[in-house]
Amino acid sequence: MTIVLHELALERGILSSPFCWMVRFALAHKGLDYQSAPTSFTGIPAICGGGQKMVPVIEDGGRVVADSWVIAEHLEAAHADRPSLFGGALGRNYARFVFATFTTHILREAVITVTGEVYKKVQPEDRDYYRDSRAQRFGMPIEEFTAAPVAERIAVLRATLDPLRTVLKDQPFLSGAAPLYADYVAAGFLLWWRAASPERVLEKDDVLIPWFERMLALYPRIAKDSTRTWDGP
Amino acid sequence: MTIVLHELALERGILSSPFCWMVRFALAHKGLDYQSAPTSFTGIPAICGGGQKMVPVIEDGGRVVADSWVIAEHLEAAHADRPSLFGGALGRNYARFVFATFTTHILREAVITVTGEVYKKVQPEDRDYYRDSRAQRFGMPIEEFTAAPVAERIAVLRATLDPLRTVLKDQPFLSGAAPLYADYVAAGFLLWWRAASPERVLEKDDVLIPWFERMLALYPRIAKDSTRTWDGP
Repeated sequence: MTIVLHELALERGILSSPFCWMVRFALAHKGLDYQSAPTSFTGIPAICGGGQKMVPVIEDGGRVVADSWVIAEHLEAAHADRPSLFGGALGRNYARFVFATFTTHILREAVITVTGEVYKKVQPEDRDYYRDSRAQRFGMPIEEFTAAPVAERIAVLRATLDPLRTVLKDQPFLSGAAPLYADYVAAGFLLWWRAASPERVLEKDDVLIPWFERMLALYPRIAKDSTRTWDGP
Repeated sequence: MTIVLHELALERGILSSPFCWMVRFALAHKGLDYQSAPTSFTGIPAICGGGQKMVPVIEDGGRVVADSWVIAEHLEAAHADRPSLFGGALGRNYARFVFATFTTHILREAVITVTGEVYKKVQPEDRDYYRDSRAQRFGMPIEEFTAAPVAERIAVLRATLDPLRTVLKDQPFLSGAAPLYADYVAAGFLLWWRAASPERVLEKDDVLIPWFERMLALYPRIAKDSTRTWDGP
């Protein structure tokens, strides 16, 4: 049965969640067919009969599973006959650590750089919710996000990605010769950041770019649905 | 033949380098006998016939190998008949990423919290070198390190260790049921930070403490040579 993926969309259907991209990569890696069910922020409480607070959420053969990490573990266990997403316990721990490094050290600052831009592009019914929730979470009114020195913050954020560069110096993927979930975590983050950022997030000669191009070349559907480019506005 | 480990020592032989602790763990994991050759900072250019700028450096059967990461890869390859330090390519990548996360996101700030204390404890011949090199590297005179709000900085640093907590929530070691080099990287960092810090680095109820105690219980020689405790001055 086709899996349903509830994922976040901005205006014009632009997908805007690092965690939803991670799940898309995981589904593609497993070769599982899925149907996208885009939602606005304020639409989330109505999906799957209610009770959900965040996306991604998937419906897989009658089961509803929320939280990108929990979904990844679910897919690995429930579809064990498909290619492994983690490559065993060490690969699972590796991916978990990469995921936690992004949420601990990188995500909050990255969100600040994109919030002003995302606010312009949320669906109309989300505008009040987005403005108020971000102001509360970050302790500054939405206008200050666009006034923030975004280019400077991005320069700092580029440096926070150095652990990726260290590992990729020697090999094509974070996981070695072929990609696994550690790669999908990092690529999901970059897909979101690139699409949402008003500034180029990586410099042209960054060694992460060839790796990112390899990631986009893996799955045509992901490449197609992430329509903006490094050079996009 | 016994391996010689050149490692950094302060006054009274206190060992003070996260990277040297990592190598000690690696040697112990492989069950390799080693002889410690402590050096002061200013003694480093004289070891191994000259040409070295940093420790750890090991002499292993006539080969001189420098840099903790290069040493770990050397030990894994040259002593492949011993227990694996990485557990395969994914474990190697995992350890590499953990290592790079420490150097990128944690080490510099941690060094600032301990520099004032280490300065009091370096060997007499190191005092001028240490004062001048740290002032240059961090752009502030050594007196400002001791004047810095160390307790506040440590509180921030505690939070930077969250990725370790995320992985350790589910299992006894970062690497799973048994420790591998990813654990040794993190434990080496904490051994150094604990020994050099003028303040307690982890709070009493931190979930990292049971893990750290497991790490110290692995190898009696490491436990013995890291004489200071969480409650030490």
